Amino acid sequence: MTKKTLGIGMVGYGFMGRAHSNAFAQAPHFFDLPFKPVLKAACARDANKLKPFADQWGYESTETDWRKLIDRKDIDIIDIAAPNNMHMEIAIAAAAAGKIVMCEKPLGRNAAESRKMVDAVEKAKVANMVWYNYRRIPAVTLAKQFIDEGKLGKIFHYRAKFLQDWTISADLPQGGQGLWRLDLGVAGSGVTGDLLAHCIDTSLWLNGGIKQVVGMTETFIKERHHNLTGKTEKVGIDDASLFLARYENGSLGNFEATRYARGHKALYTLEINGEKASIFWDLHDLHRLQYFDHGDEGITRGWRSIHVTDGDHPYMGKWWVPGLQIGYEHSFIHQAADFIQGLGDGKPASPTFRDALATDLVTDAVLKSAASKQWENVA
Amino acid sequence: MTKKTLGIGMVGYGFMGRAHSNAFAQAPHFFDLPFKPVLKAACARDANKLKPFADQWGYESTETDWRKLIDRKDIDIIDIAAPNNMHMEIAIAAAAAGKIVMCEKPLGRNAAESRKMVDAVEKAKVANMVWYNYRRIPAVTLAKQFIDEGKLGKIFHYRAKFLQDWTISADLPQGGQGLWRLDLGVAGSGVTGDLLAHCIDTSLWLNGGIKQVVGMTETFIKERHHNLTGKTEKVGIDDASLFLARYENGSLGNFEATRYARGHKALYTLEINGEKASIFWDLHDLHRLQYFDHGDEGITRGWRSIHVTDGDHPYMGKWWVPGLQIGYEHSFIHQAADFIQGLGDGKPASPTFRDALATDLVTDAVLKSAASKQWENVA
Amino acid sequence: MTKKTLGIGMVGYGFMGRAHSNAFAQAPHFFDLPFKPVLKAACARDANKLKPFADQWGYESTETDWRKLIDRKDIDIIDIAAPNNMHMEIAIAAAAAGKIVMCEKPLGRNAAESRKMVDAVEKAKVANMVWYNYRRIPAVTLAKQFIDEGKLGKIFHYRAKFLQDWTISADLPQGGQGLWRLDLGVAGSGVTGDLLAHCIDTSLWLNGGIKQVVGMTETFIKERHHNLTGKTEKVGIDDASLFLARYENGSLGNFEATRYARGHKALYTLEINGEKASIFWDLHDLHRLQYFDHGDEGITRGWRSIHVTDGDHPYMGKWWVPGLQIGYEHSFIHQAADFIQGLGDGKPASPTFRDALATDLVTDAVLKSAASKQWENVA
Amino acid sequence: MTKKTLGIGMVGYGFMGRAHSNAFAQAPHFFDLPFKPVLKAACARDANKLKPFADQWGYESTETDWRKLIDRKDIDIIDIAAPNNMHMEIAIAAAAAGKIVMCEKPLGRNAAESRKMVDAVEKAKVANMVWYNYRRIPAVTLAKQFIDEGKLGKIFHYRAKFLQDWTISADLPQGGQGLWRLDLGVAGSGVTGDLLAHCIDTSLWLNGGIKQVVGMTETFIKERHHNLTGKTEKVGIDDASLFLARYENGSLGNFEATRYARGHKALYTLEINGEKASIFWDLHDLHRLQYFDHGDEGITRGWRSIHVTDGDHPYMGKWWVPGLQIGYEHSFIHQAADFIQGLGDGKPASPTFRDALATDLVTDAVLKSAASKQWENVA
Repeated sequence: MTKKTLGIGMVGYGFMGRAHSNAFAQAPHFFDLPFKPVLKAACARDANKLKPFADQWGYESTETDWRKLIDRKDIDIIDIAAPNNMHMEIAIAAAAAGKIVMCEKPLGRNAAESRKMVDAVEKAKVANMVWYNYRRIPAVTLAKQFIDEGKLGKIFHYRAKFLQDWTISADLPQGGQGLWRLDLGVAGSGVTGDLLAHCIDTSLWLNGGIKQVVGMTETFIKERHHNLTGKTEKVGIDDASLFLARYENGSLGNFEATRYARGHKALYTLEINGEKASIFWDLHDLHRLQYFDHGDEGITRGWRSIHVTDGDHPYMGKWWVPGLQIGYEHSFIHQAADFIQGLGDGKPASPTFRDALATDLVTDAVLKSAASKQWENVA
Repeated sequence: MTKKTLGIGMVGYGFMGRAHSNAFAQAPHFFDLPFKPVLKAACARDANKLKPFADQWGYESTETDWRKLIDRKDIDIIDIAAPNNMHMEIAIAAAAAGKIVMCEKPLGRNAAESRKMVDAVEKAKVANMVWYNYRRIPAVTLAKQFIDEGKLGKIFHYRAKFLQDWTISADLPQGGQGLWRLDLGVAGSGVTGDLLAHCIDTSLWLNGGIKQVVGMTETFIKERHHNLTGKTEKVGIDDASLFLARYENGSLGNFEATRYARGHKALYTLEINGEKASIFWDLHDLHRLQYFDHGDEGITRGWRSIHVTDGDHPYMGKWWVPGLQIGYEHSFIHQAADFIQGLGDGKPASPTFRDALATDLVTDAVLKSAASKQWENVA
Repeated sequence: MTKKTLGIGMVGYGFMGRAHSNAFAQAPHFFDLPFKPVLKAACARDANKLKPFADQWGYESTETDWRKLIDRKDIDIIDIAAPNNMHMEIAIAAAAAGKIVMCEKPLGRNAAESRKMVDAVEKAKVANMVWYNYRRIPAVTLAKQFIDEGKLGKIFHYRAKFLQDWTISADLPQGGQGLWRLDLGVAGSGVTGDLLAHCIDTSLWLNGGIKQVVGMTETFIKERHHNLTGKTEKVGIDDASLFLARYENGSLGNFEATRYARGHKALYTLEINGEKASIFWDLHDLHRLQYFDHGDEGITRGWRSIHVTDGDHPYMGKWWVPGLQIGYEHSFIHQAADFIQGLGDGKPASPTFRDALATDLVTDAVLKSAASKQWENVA
Repeated sequence: MTKKTLGIGMVGYGFMGRAHSNAFAQAPHFFDLPFKPVLKAACARDANKLKPFADQWGYESTETDWRKLIDRKDIDIIDIAAPNNMHMEIAIAAAAAGKIVMCEKPLGRNAAESRKMVDAVEKAKVANMVWYNYRRIPAVTLAKQFIDEGKLGKIFHYRAKFLQDWTISADLPQGGQGLWRLDLGVAGSGVTGDLLAHCIDTSLWLNGGIKQVVGMTETFIKERHHNLTGKTEKVGIDDASLFLARYENGSLGNFEATRYARGHKALYTLEINGEKASIFWDLHDLHRLQYFDHGDEGITRGWRSIHVTDGDHPYMGKWWVPGLQIGYEHSFIHQAADFIQGLGDGKPASPTFRDALATDLVTDAVLKSAASKQWENVA
């Protein structure tokens, strides 16, 4: 018996185009799924750049106009891995055409865009998901399981950082190929929408809603050469973004993201302190969860370094044997697998577009507070 | 030739009374000092509790009235290790009597008190110092050396936390023997003056002045039994205190202190990100300095874990051999040694009362901002 | 232009069957290879168990007799992922048929078997490789690069351990499905051939030849139930195996492997101490290389934790962006990619069958020494 | 009531003379002891070098002939901190004179010397102790407590290393001031008696007797300039010493010591793997004990990093507050305190001379095996 297929139409061939393609290619090798994803078509404006990508991943065809991709009958899923400024238009059109829509994060460039996208998919009643992949790092999923089981008890503190150091050089241009994250018009914001958005998504999932924030942003290098215009222009994005938060459950949040933390490549860390236990996780050693259980016998208490590679750890029964770690890309594979499984079960996998909108409401409030210099409510 | 002695009069016999006494006892064993400190008298109201302390440390005598201690001719230094609410009165009287004055941190319960103390010692022209001991953990002193040598370059970020977990139980009383840090009237504030003050002192030393802050405080347990009054009363201190800061040098600060971080006993951490290098330090492994040098050959770059125990590391040439670590108490020994050396050289060791006042101005601004819910300038 | 294909015939569908299949599936997605591997046929005796494996990985066909697999014209590579006792016969037949032969480690159950296999592939002049995958963990490859560049200088010490804890329970049977590694007849030895062999292969590659060894083995649980015979039988395999070694370059080796080290799942660690620098690596955090460079300025010296995820680190330019780690399975992908590239270049990738024989000569000497209770020369 | 005093006569003023003096000075500050140690006299041949040492530590007098020291009536304890070649003669004379005898490790230069020393103190019935200080690092004492409580269950593996890197330079002389550890005649052996002896002492205490060993030693630099003779001479000491061991309890030992491990200053590590739990300790972070408890719930299992600074951890109730670490020197303070307490209780503190002899029997067997190239029984 042959499985029913899901025709994938991928928009974008960059870093995320590769990560998503890999997810669809690998998910069926490790998970027993109700549908078989098929890489039907890759889409991008520049056919010359698209070709080697499509070949490498085995896409059956290519398109240079995403509207044509949406029109194709053999495409079931439109997966948007294009820069942020293209998310809204494509997603709304895809939903209107009745396609399943998957979108790289952040959903829109701001909450206003995101809200339109939510409206579109909910009106069209199409399955949808945003690739906030870190929820499905096994150690992070395990953290969620611990919290849901009540292992942490009442939460007092949530702390998250996402530190990078790749834009410190003043010679780096803003905008252009591979650098659109530095272009305000394309990206919508700097580290707030890029890095903090990840921290916020995980946090909303693990610790619930945020009521109020007070934020501070900084652009350390004020002017940069722009690759596309050829001119030196004012830099619009935020290089660093920090905020304090009050959660609905009474806990306190401390968030920080920057691209000016020398020595950190992609150091996403999170820590949660509860009455009964605490957890800590770090993307640079993503296969470990640090766990402190106050219930342990006093003289033996210590932070446990859990090597999340056992068969009874989330997702890990599908991979190798205990002790053998998986990596970053696997979070996408797990998300693709969960999404496809959810399609079969009729239970949509999170985060949906609506879930992702909640993150944008927080990032909007952070940016608003940085400008107003006072606390702002999350809308 | 016998060295000239310095008669020490110690006020207080608690945790800090022991730490200071140890500092004076040990400094001459390891450092070649211009004066020999002599433990002349220990002073506290309760003679019964004072006696075993004085015996254990070999104080030559005891006093139960600090005014009498100040009157004694054989006392050169009044060292205040009593609770915060007694700092101001004793210090001012000691200065007026022409004594050298040393005071446990924080200087006063707030900047107003501290300012009076600064005025008193400066008017009296007496040597003075506040025991912000962490400056003299060798790894922290080494960090200062790196910064002064320009190893870090322009600073972008300063991040400090002081996390504890010892007041989470709702059964813990506020106030009373050993618990005065939980009593607002005695302590002046909660973690802000207790823990954040340490973070701020080190930060001002390493990274210069702070211009503006926005803070948030929380008292998780609103009422506690009070040991002295015998009643359940509203808790006045802050259990957690967080703030964002802008430094005069353009860098951004992120500070947090709490006694509700399960799993952390005294986790004072600091990290500084500069253009050329970053450093990280952690009180729980206080003999190590983490250092990332972007100038290293690309493929070999990594955070270096410097085991600060070599003979050419600060203070360490006076101790054992490379690889053999010292501990917490040694920071006080170093401070006593530096102070006594400074008396000989006529160069006062920092932090002076005036240096410590700067910290109180920041803590005052943090508490003010937590109440006003907006950014506040540091006075 | 379509690439020439390489028809893969996979023998075995267990842990290693999956790892090898994944390697061939993924290599072309990330590496630009001269040939396209095609999963032509999977082979195992039990058709029912083979079917889901073949489906999951997309094998075009199945065989239940490896001789038929070897006879097939569309198969270019015979890849042996079957238990150890089948390696020799299949490899020799495959070589005789002119097939490229790849074999899971260890090559034979002992050096005598391995020698026949070497003779066969060398006589047949067919390309060949043994899947000692750890050479191609990027951090380990980087270690090799450091050594080759002379960064370590003269080597004094080599230290390796492979610690597991999965056979401590006395209830675990020996032999049977998934447990053939506990059956002496099938495996050839216990941890010596299973775990130490990995340590030795890496060591021979990084540090050159071993002259002499003295070893000690132990079987902690003397009798176990055998799943296949249904009886309680004497355990033949070694549960732990340790040896000291003298290398040709004058350095000293210390090796240990066990399945009785509670708390370690697959802790393969290696450390090399040279005159100028030292390195340390650990499979449980496989994406890091610890590096100590004595040439660093004295006060800044420390072990560097290199996060081996930069574009200029071995293989990593093909994956994601700095800071994002890959995992265990990628070592197989790299090995497949290097092997296929080597076929195109006419330069065989190591370790060849002959390279792998060198490892077996050491394991044989270790086992001989454990029995003779004296030092033994490596033949 | 004044405590009875114990007059200390210290032989030696080097590294260990300081460590022992500090122990006697500090023990009464933190422990409530039955006797008050008094630094009566320091003794060494060179009066000029002795003077500043005696002054710094407050010795009441000095002697330049240890026989005179032994003759003094005001001396209760002869503490031998002189080079190894002087241990035997002084100890035997002190015992004969009825003095309590304390001796720096190793006891003698070999077991033959040590046996004579044991005979002397036992015949004289004088209290005696050898300064194997690492037993009293709180984390190591806690390990002993865990083992005694049965937390580890049956032991399978004991692993210890002591790695240094201070003799790699070929320019370092052998022998002379501060370098007697490199002189075979004075030291008795190289790292075997210096570093391995520490590992063995702890191991005998934690894991019981060793039956058999097979060892390997190496002297990497064969000739060195001798500071005292002024000539280049053959180096007699071992630079590295490794051995495998079989314990009486059936467990397997793996020991290694070297002064050629670049990057390690004094890295004494030990690991014990038991059926139920494992522990790991490391001198470079001596205030932590790593502990893995297999009894923990499966998905939460991990190595716990116990920060051994709580009031209920061994010795720590006497020091500061949780989270504040102590250092290397404190192990000596604890040993002095335990010894003085033992004198009061009439229960001698270990390790006695007899306990220390057991270590020398192992080091003798290791050196014998290194020469014979076969396994040797521990006598």
